[in-house]
Amino acid sequence: MGAVISLNQETSPLGNSVERLVDLVSDDLDAVNAVILDRMKSPVELIPTLAGHLISSGGKRLRPLLTLSTARMLGVDGDAHIKLAAAVEFIHTATLLHDDVIDESVLRRGKASANVLWGNKSSVLVGDFLFSRSFRLMVEVGSFEVLDILSNAAAVIAEGEVMQLSTAKDTATSEEDYMAVIEAKTAALFAAAARSGGIAAGGTKAQEEALEQFGRNLGIAFQLVDDALDYSGRQATLGKTVGDDFRDGKITLPVVLAYRRGTDDERTFWQRTLEEGHQEDGDLHRATRLMEKYNTISDTIDRATKFGNRSREALDQLPSGPLNTTLGEIIDFCISRAY
Amino acid sequence: MGAVISLNQETSPLGNSVERLVDLVSDDLDAVNAVILDRMKSPVELIPTLAGHLISSGGKRLRPLLTLSTARMLGVDGDAHIKLAAAVEFIHTATLLHDDVIDESVLRRGKASANVLWGNKSSVLVGDFLFSRSFRLMVEVGSFEVLDILSNAAAVIAEGEVMQLSTAKDTATSEEDYMAVIEAKTAALFAAAARSGGIAAGGTKAQEEALEQFGRNLGIAFQLVDDALDYSGRQATLGKTVGDDFRDGKITLPVVLAYRRGTDDERTFWQRTLEEGHQEDGDLHRATRLMEKYNTISDTIDRATKFGNRSREALDQLPSGPLNTTLGEIIDFCISRAY
Repeated sequence: MGAVISLNQETSPLGNSVERLVDLVSDDLDAVNAVILDRMKSPVELIPTLAGHLISSGGKRLRPLLTLSTARMLGVDGDAHIKLAAAVEFIHTATLLHDDVIDESVLRRGKASANVLWGNKSSVLVGDFLFSRSFRLMVEVGSFEVLDILSNAAAVIAEGEVMQLSTAKDTATSEEDYMAVIEAKTAALFAAAARSGGIAAGGTKAQEEALEQFGRNLGIAFQLVDDALDYSGRQATLGKTVGDDFRDGKITLPVVLAYRRGTDDERTFWQRTLEEGHQEDGDLHRATRLMEKYNTISDTIDRATKFGNRSREALDQLPSGPLNTTLGEIIDFCISRAY
Repeated sequence: MGAVISLNQETSPLGNSVERLVDLVSDDLDAVNAVILDRMKSPVELIPTLAGHLISSGGKRLRPLLTLSTARMLGVDGDAHIKLAAAVEFIHTATLLHDDVIDESVLRRGKASANVLWGNKSSVLVGDFLFSRSFRLMVEVGSFEVLDILSNAAAVIAEGEVMQLSTAKDTATSEEDYMAVIEAKTAALFAAAARSGGIAAGGTKAQEEALEQFGRNLGIAFQLVDDALDYSGRQATLGKTVGDDFRDGKITLPVVLAYRRGTDDERTFWQRTLEEGHQEDGDLHRATRLMEKYNTISDTIDRATKFGNRSREALDQLPSGPLNTTLGEIIDFCISRAY
């Protein structure tokens, strides 16, 4: 397990900690990118074109990095972790393609999204293609345990997205419902990505369990901060627009808390803007002022900090070294980017 | 391998041969339906509601029947074939859900389609859920060979659908392109469904290969007849509307042949109606008259007959008995329903 220093230092929206992680597994990451390019191939030209648009558009590869780094942390041999990391990225990409279709998004990572360029039809089908290819990669690795964990994660992600549809525009959504959604739609794949690395390395059950907890809690913290950032000026500096969730009527924790703590008049405001979708100029501004009034952004970040701490506790049970240190810094950065 | 006679004789749109096949594997089919109901379950209510709408809407279960009957034909033990048949039906259902979204269909099996009732978003996600669950079923069966075959079929289906998007509205589509599309989008799953049954039963490689050929050629014949029927009055008696493909601008074999054999004036007609999508009253009637003029419907059915014969040749290499006889009758019926 040697630390490999990459010659080309890319900047990442997730900060220096991710850059350091990339450096530590740079040969592996190059190998993952090669597998991704190879397995996107198809005689049907539109498939690599469309998939490549998203895959090569500067995503941070956070999930495959979790698989690579946890595998290396436990001293992996062979290339199972490479294929699994590529499979994880394919599952994530398929999810994004389907998300963009269903949300009618127009931007993804600062570029026009695939559904706008090639139509919804193509995005759904190329997502299906990548999803199938991810399973072929897992089959090649030949571990039923990994297949079980990743296919379960994929089902849970879809479940979480359907759950999110049900809670969308529903201001009565409880904190519990919200947490169930983000555990399913985000944390499940973080957990599976981290655990898969451990399985590829032949880790013990206790190590697998710690990796799962590390990934799951990091995923929850990550999504909580994402949802807080959507209402924050910090968002603009990360290349995303502010208020997307508000415009989509998504009920995230900052809203759930503001609604619960609000006056009748304020609740009427949330119902009009999010449930009925009648939004006027100045409504986003009022929404953020209500969140400030009730400290719901900072409470969301506090909650993220708590899950970040749990993720770190799990990490402490795993072998120490540069990878462990850097993963710890990623937890810190995941929280601190909120400020 | 005992023939089990069912007490409730259901009628099937595929005729008496399918009824007979259902009777021969009725206990297995009941078990498949139980697995399907069980694995559709989710705490997220919309998932079983939406999936159940499609799964229990009188589909003919042709693909899972192929898995069950080929497994029984080779003397299967245990319940691997039950789980694989359910997995095959889940893959098929996921494909239908995604098809309906992308085609903006309003009817499926004579009922309002899921995307109309619950929205495109839900249909895409529930399709993803079923797809993931199908993989979990395969993982439970514990055969890497089956996982490889079915995950490959799933990738090929998506590839075929993207290919179909590229040929849609393109009157220059060649017969070869058309055949590539139907082999991928239809025949691949028929082939995988039949072969999986053989693997579950521990068949020889030669038997697996024969099952694959049986399924693939049946699938091609089935799709050719479907595409012929879309322009035929017979279609109405099968509970489907006539001319759907024409309205969608789909380039199927009856069109490919009519275009190739047509005059300049007729080609202009096909370009206006299918490429440019400008359709007027009477255009569908003119289309069917041109197909009659050039015998393209009957030529399509002739071609289906040829593939039906290949399917039967493959069947002849497999153990004889009531199941083999009935599968042969299904090939015949698949062709004869065109008349």
